[in-house]
Amino acid sequence: MNSDFPTASGSVQWQLGPIIDALRTSRESTHNIRHQGRVRELPSRDVLTGVVNGVSAALFPTHYGRPDLNDESIDYFVGDTLNVTLDRLVGQVRRALRFSPEYEEAGDAQLAERAQAITRAFAASLPGIRALLVSDVQAALAGDPAARSVAEIMLCYPGTIAILYHRLAHCLQRLGVPFLARLAADIAHSLTGIDIHPAARIGASFFIDHGTGVVIGETAVIGERVRLYQAVTLGARRFPVGEDGSLVKGAPRHPIVEDDVVIYAGATVLGRITVGAGSTIGGNVWLTHSVPPGSNVSQAQSRNT
Amino acid sequence: MNSDFPTASGSVQWQLGPIIDALRTSRESTHNIRHQGRVRELPSRDVLTGVVNGVSAALFPTHYGRPDLNDESIDYFVGDTLNVTLDRLVGQVRRALRFSPEYEEAGDAQLAERAQAITRAFAASLPGIRALLVSDVQAALAGDPAARSVAEIMLCYPGTIAILYHRLAHCLQRLGVPFLARLAADIAHSLTGIDIHPAARIGASFFIDHGTGVVIGETAVIGERVRLYQAVTLGARRFPVGEDGSLVKGAPRHPIVEDDVVIYAGATVLGRITVGAGSTIGGNVWLTHSVPPGSNVSQAQSRNT
Amino acid sequence: MNSDFPTASGSVQWQLGPIIDALRTSRESTHNIRHQGRVRELPSRDVLTGVVNGVSAALFPTHYGRPDLNDESIDYFVGDTLNVTLDRLVGQVRRALRFSPEYEEAGDAQLAERAQAITRAFAASLPGIRALLVSDVQAALAGDPAARSVAEIMLCYPGTIAILYHRLAHCLQRLGVPFLARLAADIAHSLTGIDIHPAARIGASFFIDHGTGVVIGETAVIGERVRLYQAVTLGARRFPVGEDGSLVKGAPRHPIVEDDVVIYAGATVLGRITVGAGSTIGGNVWLTHSVPPGSNVSQAQSRNT
Amino acid sequence: MNSDFPTASGSVQWQLGPIIDALRTSRESTHNIRHQGRVRELPSRDVLTGVVNGVSAALFPTHYGRPDLNDESIDYFVGDTLNVTLDRLVGQVRRALRFSPEYEEAGDAQLAERAQAITRAFAASLPGIRALLVSDVQAALAGDPAARSVAEIMLCYPGTIAILYHRLAHCLQRLGVPFLARLAADIAHSLTGIDIHPAARIGASFFIDHGTGVVIGETAVIGERVRLYQAVTLGARRFPVGEDGSLVKGAPRHPIVEDDVVIYAGATVLGRITVGAGSTIGGNVWLTHSVPPGSNVSQAQSRNT
Amino acid sequence: MNSDFPTASGSVQWQLGPIIDALRTSRESTHNIRHQGRVRELPSRDVLTGVVNGVSAALFPTHYGRPDLNDESIDYFVGDTLNVTLDRLVGQVRRALRFSPEYEEAGDAQLAERAQAITRAFAASLPGIRALLVSDVQAALAGDPAARSVAEIMLCYPGTIAILYHRLAHCLQRLGVPFLARLAADIAHSLTGIDIHPAARIGASFFIDHGTGVVIGETAVIGERVRLYQAVTLGARRFPVGEDGSLVKGAPRHPIVEDDVVIYAGATVLGRITVGAGSTIGGNVWLTHSVPPGSNVSQAQSRNT
Amino acid sequence: MNSDFPTASGSVQWQLGPIIDALRTSRESTHNIRHQGRVRELPSRDVLTGVVNGVSAALFPTHYGRPDLNDESIDYFVGDTLNVTLDRLVGQVRRALRFSPEYEEAGDAQLAERAQAITRAFAASLPGIRALLVSDVQAALAGDPAARSVAEIMLCYPGTIAILYHRLAHCLQRLGVPFLARLAADIAHSLTGIDIHPAARIGASFFIDHGTGVVIGETAVIGERVRLYQAVTLGARRFPVGEDGSLVKGAPRHPIVEDDVVIYAGATVLGRITVGAGSTIGGNVWLTHSVPPGSNVSQAQSRNT
Repeated sequence: MNSDFPTASGSVQWQLGPIIDALRTSRESTHNIRHQGRVRELPSRDVLTGVVNGVSAALFPTHYGRPDLNDESIDYFVGDTLNVTLDRLVGQVRRALRFSPEYEEAGDAQLAERAQAITRAFAASLPGIRALLVSDVQAALAGDPAARSVAEIMLCYPGTIAILYHRLAHCLQRLGVPFLARLAADIAHSLTGIDIHPAARIGASFFIDHGTGVVIGETAVIGERVRLYQAVTLGARRFPVGEDGSLVKGAPRHPIVEDDVVIYAGATVLGRITVGAGSTIGGNVWLTHSVPPGSNVSQAQSRNT
Repeated sequence: MNSDFPTASGSVQWQLGPIIDALRTSRESTHNIRHQGRVRELPSRDVLTGVVNGVSAALFPTHYGRPDLNDESIDYFVGDTLNVTLDRLVGQVRRALRFSPEYEEAGDAQLAERAQAITRAFAASLPGIRALLVSDVQAALAGDPAARSVAEIMLCYPGTIAILYHRLAHCLQRLGVPFLARLAADIAHSLTGIDIHPAARIGASFFIDHGTGVVIGETAVIGERVRLYQAVTLGARRFPVGEDGSLVKGAPRHPIVEDDVVIYAGATVLGRITVGAGSTIGGNVWLTHSVPPGSNVSQAQSRNT
Repeated sequence: MNSDFPTASGSVQWQLGPIIDALRTSRESTHNIRHQGRVRELPSRDVLTGVVNGVSAALFPTHYGRPDLNDESIDYFVGDTLNVTLDRLVGQVRRALRFSPEYEEAGDAQLAERAQAITRAFAASLPGIRALLVSDVQAALAGDPAARSVAEIMLCYPGTIAILYHRLAHCLQRLGVPFLARLAADIAHSLTGIDIHPAARIGASFFIDHGTGVVIGETAVIGERVRLYQAVTLGARRFPVGEDGSLVKGAPRHPIVEDDVVIYAGATVLGRITVGAGSTIGGNVWLTHSVPPGSNVSQAQSRNT
Repeated sequence: MNSDFPTASGSVQWQLGPIIDALRTSRESTHNIRHQGRVRELPSRDVLTGVVNGVSAALFPTHYGRPDLNDESIDYFVGDTLNVTLDRLVGQVRRALRFSPEYEEAGDAQLAERAQAITRAFAASLPGIRALLVSDVQAALAGDPAARSVAEIMLCYPGTIAILYHRLAHCLQRLGVPFLARLAADIAHSLTGIDIHPAARIGASFFIDHGTGVVIGETAVIGERVRLYQAVTLGARRFPVGEDGSLVKGAPRHPIVEDDVVIYAGATVLGRITVGAGSTIGGNVWLTHSVPPGSNVSQAQSRNT
Repeated sequence: MNSDFPTASGSVQWQLGPIIDALRTSRESTHNIRHQGRVRELPSRDVLTGVVNGVSAALFPTHYGRPDLNDESIDYFVGDTLNVTLDRLVGQVRRALRFSPEYEEAGDAQLAERAQAITRAFAASLPGIRALLVSDVQAALAGDPAARSVAEIMLCYPGTIAILYHRLAHCLQRLGVPFLARLAADIAHSLTGIDIHPAARIGASFFIDHGTGVVIGETAVIGERVRLYQAVTLGARRFPVGEDGSLVKGAPRHPIVEDDVVIYAGATVLGRITVGAGSTIGGNVWLTHSVPPGSNVSQAQSRNT
Repeated sequence: MNSDFPTASGSVQWQLGPIIDALRTSRESTHNIRHQGRVRELPSRDVLTGVVNGVSAALFPTHYGRPDLNDESIDYFVGDTLNVTLDRLVGQVRRALRFSPEYEEAGDAQLAERAQAITRAFAASLPGIRALLVSDVQAALAGDPAARSVAEIMLCYPGTIAILYHRLAHCLQRLGVPFLARLAADIAHSLTGIDIHPAARIGASFFIDHGTGVVIGETAVIGERVRLYQAVTLGARRFPVGEDGSLVKGAPRHPIVEDDVVIYAGATVLGRITVGAGSTIGGNVWLTHSVPPGSNVSQAQSRNT
């Protein structure tokens, strides 16, 4: 049969054999990326998205759950949603732990026990996280002259989605599942254009307006009542290199932003510097040194030609 | 039973009771965000996305509807799609109106009547909106040297999606459902990285290239044949504060951009200033004062160290 | 019947007739955008997303396919996935070719034959593309101090998604289906905020960190081991205009970035200039002239007021 | 254009106009089946199937709900499932009531109130229904020598599905929504081949083995511990005709089967007769007269030719 | 590797190689069932189910389509639904024609043209089919004392589904696509337990009550106003065998049932006999000879032992 | 709050508390059906349906899999489909084994090992099962004068579905998972109205025509080339009762049907009798004694009144 043309039934023969062979060779020898030759089951982006949705519904049942809940039915909803969600989360935690050096070789029972303990601790953190998120929503209502209601902020503000994902991701990070935390952060990034490393520490009443292009680095520390606009970077200036020439992971290298700071659109704040409490950083400012509390930093004007 | 370990069937007991109690306390007293203690049914992001898709299909049946339509079948498709879509929209309008102060306490019949009138007016606006969108697509074809066909612009350009959503959202805004308008704008923002407040007024033949990070504020006014590139901000410089210290909502605070202006990537234009007709604003320019028609504004060069 | 009010069954009469008439008039005469009065079947965004997912699964079966594959089953999975995916791709190629001037009038058989040849060539390119993508992942692991594992980079980094889509889109572009290539690029743009024109040429070991707001233009050329951060633009300075006043399409107008260059966040590099090998371009730099190898370009500091 | 052949894009013009006209004429005049010219919203087969599934899950959470429930989580599941299910049911009841003569002209508020009262009464009946169903399952376990476990009977026996649907449908019938009851009965009929009219009265510990072809009529009365096999009919012998020649609806015309009766496959029992307690009716028997308690009825043998 | 046990990632190696080889051998040589060694694309059960649903919705828009249609919107719905449905049907007709000897070797263009002609004829038959179906529904309303409304008969009676499918299948049969007709008949059989060969000719006002187990053979002819109950067989007595010993296909071998006949449950009528107009055939009767008009046939009583 | 009426948001309070309490009481004490107070994870009807579909596709790839397979791609499809299907099956086998007395208390590892061994043996049986199924299809083609092609028999004959499910279910039964076998049999029963106990032994070239209402009991033994029509019962005459008065499970109590027997519609064959090779059993015959080879059994005629 001349396989360059479709067969009678319309199907094409693609000469798959050599391609499959070449891919196998690439996979197993020339471009092998398996960790120590092994396959570890990966967390699932879709499942984790479902977990965040489930937690959101348990935290704010009438906003993110079902609008027809009432005093009688709401706790059944919260209880069942939490139960289903934690059952799903514990499996993802177990998978993610396999990527932590200390659990790479752990037995199945030890891994399962640790995943349960983490998931239980995560669940116990939820009321506290809800309190923080309410402070964030109220900060948005106070900070945006275009905002009209709590509901609008919860449904239509990318900053709300970003901080919701972050507070959950940060909790997972603290509890020892950085892979899962990172995956949650990237889902939020894809949805909002806001990229917050899950290890960043962010105080209450935090508000990002518009938000696209915001980047907050791994070791950033943000105080209370801080407000950011789109395209703000809280980044690293340089990466510390160890004696062997490789990058030192985890060293403090991102800014500390104290309470009540406002940073306008496009500002770039780099390095382990401190932006003092109550400061205002103007739009497009490029800042690589600490500024004292109450500072007001702005950039030079463009010229008219 | 020792609930720290799974039961025979593998399920874990999560000690949900105290968490549910704490969430209820947070919800009902310590961090209550219900409006006047009541729950109002919220518009649905998924349904509104479906409405925009339905309207898009009715406006451009062969591009956004079904490719196999022909002269005979197209009007049946348009009619049925419009009918289904308006039936869905009217329910969302009704929900959203509950968040407008004047309808917060309205009776069900009054609300339904108003929602129908708005939806009917929205439908009547569609032919006019189609004309504007065609002008936008043609502006894109003329303005991007990489563009090859109308179809490519309609399928592959985020700027097309952004202006499509905006023109529909702006119509909803004008008709008195700002919540729904805002929700539509945020859907577009998530899809494209382009954030246009639905109240912004934008003339015909508008084109945003690349687009990620563009922000256009609530009171911005844009003329005809305006072209923007990525990361352009048409923002507020400061927020007017009323006598009581709270933000004044709705005051004009964003730029007026006249006809035939081009604003290159990363430019920031702030405050109630006017960019005169035919001006060009260069990349990364920071502009906070009005410029006369025909201006050409660029920024200082970086230095080579 | 008074059609301003709902009928007994709750349905509303929307007075669709005049709207449908007006839309038809707009479609067929006043705002007709059909190409030469004809309708050509369009490629489908959803199907193409499925094609990219299928190819990704065939390239990296345990990361993007199914985690439970083993030595015995993996080639069956790769073979069946490739077969299904190529069967779907060939239909999209056929549709897209109709938008290339040379196939606009081609017979069905000629079109089908060409679509098969292109799809076959695409399949044959996959092992080479896999090798490039592995180099990209390894560059990310080396280049980001926060990165912990190959799996994390493949699942959680928008830069990985962007380069995966780009390498496939670039292959389609080279094979003569620019429409499909552009559609793939826009899907990646929507997912990641990173906008790479499919015609851009990018060498091995490429890494974009954070990524939102990155724009890489049609004629850009990027060497090996290049690293970009968020909001970097490799753009055109001006658009060449032909004798007839219309834009000249396809002329070289974007930068050449040589090997081992790093470009930090927010830098804007414009025009057909060359950034010499090993150079570092600082954050927010505005660069419109060539710089020699080993250059270190940074911008002026903001002033503290 | 010659519409007998496909257009360039492959779509066919079907000459829909005359067909649509003819269908309209059929609908509106020649074969109009609208009730008094009006359209009443119909109950939905799919929604009602979901309601029965929801009720089944609430009654038997680990068999028909989720297998991973435990002592802690089960009541949250039951509560949330019931709440969702009753919210869906009340809408179906409201639609169905419009088909009852006494509510055909009722106001919306009256209808809603009645639907709620019915749904509330249905919910209150569930514990009693569960007790009956458990008796039925135990009768199956005792009555079929091939049965091995309660779980097998609940998952694999069509008789279990049939009696489950019947007991719920019968409750709806008694509460005054015969349309909904009938719809539930027909869903069960389609799933199992067993056709039980929802008005039939059936005592505890009822078991149908195999079941296909069983028909139980509207006014049948069945005692406790009755066992039927496939293709048994408990039917009407003749239909009473009223003075005007039309059928009298609802008159007793199906058998009374007393406690502890067994009826073997293919037996036909017709008319308002009584099968006395403890009787056995043999396979294929044709019975149209009452038999006293303890009777043993069998048919003549076939002859061998 | 010991493949009897799961690998680290939990996946099992199933030793697929020998099984796949054995299945290929079975497929290609030992148990080859391909027609002349070729594969013909098969009609799809799911697509055909969708086609029947679409046609049903076009015929009875408020019963089988959408309940919220009104005078304004109904024709758009009917037109669009018909158009989509016929577009799907024509592809199924094309596939099915490949199984008719006269089109087995036809060219693609000839096949497409024939499929369109058939689909067009099918569409033109729909108003006539609607008229027949309305007569069937009215017969059910008149014939079942338990029936309360047209809506109940259209939603809850398996006999309605069976005759709806049959009238469409019979039309396809007459138009020359017996494979598709048979597939439609089998879908109805699975849904209702009623098995009507699509070639059977059935007059207006036909009603089957309960229905499970009814079988109507290929060459049966049924007059007007005929009523059947469950488990009635209109079958063949023997199969004519040709000179070569094989079965003669298509020869008349099933009963002729004249107008106004009633056949009660379980009756078996076999062979090319005639049941005269107005006759009544009792339950369980076994009939293999013709009976004159007005006959009343019943079976012997069982004996009480 | 007066919970008899809807709250502002339209939701109804259903007074769930007492119902949930009553259901818990029913579940845990008054009508407890848990086996020894424990919950065992149940096999899933949906998953098993998927498994049967997967196996069917692997056995007959172009009929039940995908029509566009060709010589190159078919084995990849078969291999991947088998792998996915066996991975799903092994989990169902594991669940089902918990219901076998000998594995009720087995450790997880032992259970998993046994489930793998069974699944492996099932896979190894598939080529042999395919051979039997091909013989069945050919018997249908030979035995039904209305049949036109192998494809029609595979797609449109309920008898084909029934024997396909049976041969797979019987294999599972023999391998020691009767619960799963029974579940598969009941799925087939629901689809076709044909009820074959999975333990029944059926020889090659078996054909059931029409089929609704056929029942074949647990200990039936059927030879080669046997043909049955609708509503045939191969059942038990009485159930052996042990010394303790309970039913003896598994004792031979259903007929032995030897090679080349035909049994016409509605015939009832009961008890451990033998129908000799080559016999014909007429329609509606009631047979409870053995008949020698070559017998021809028919029933008495009905009388005409």
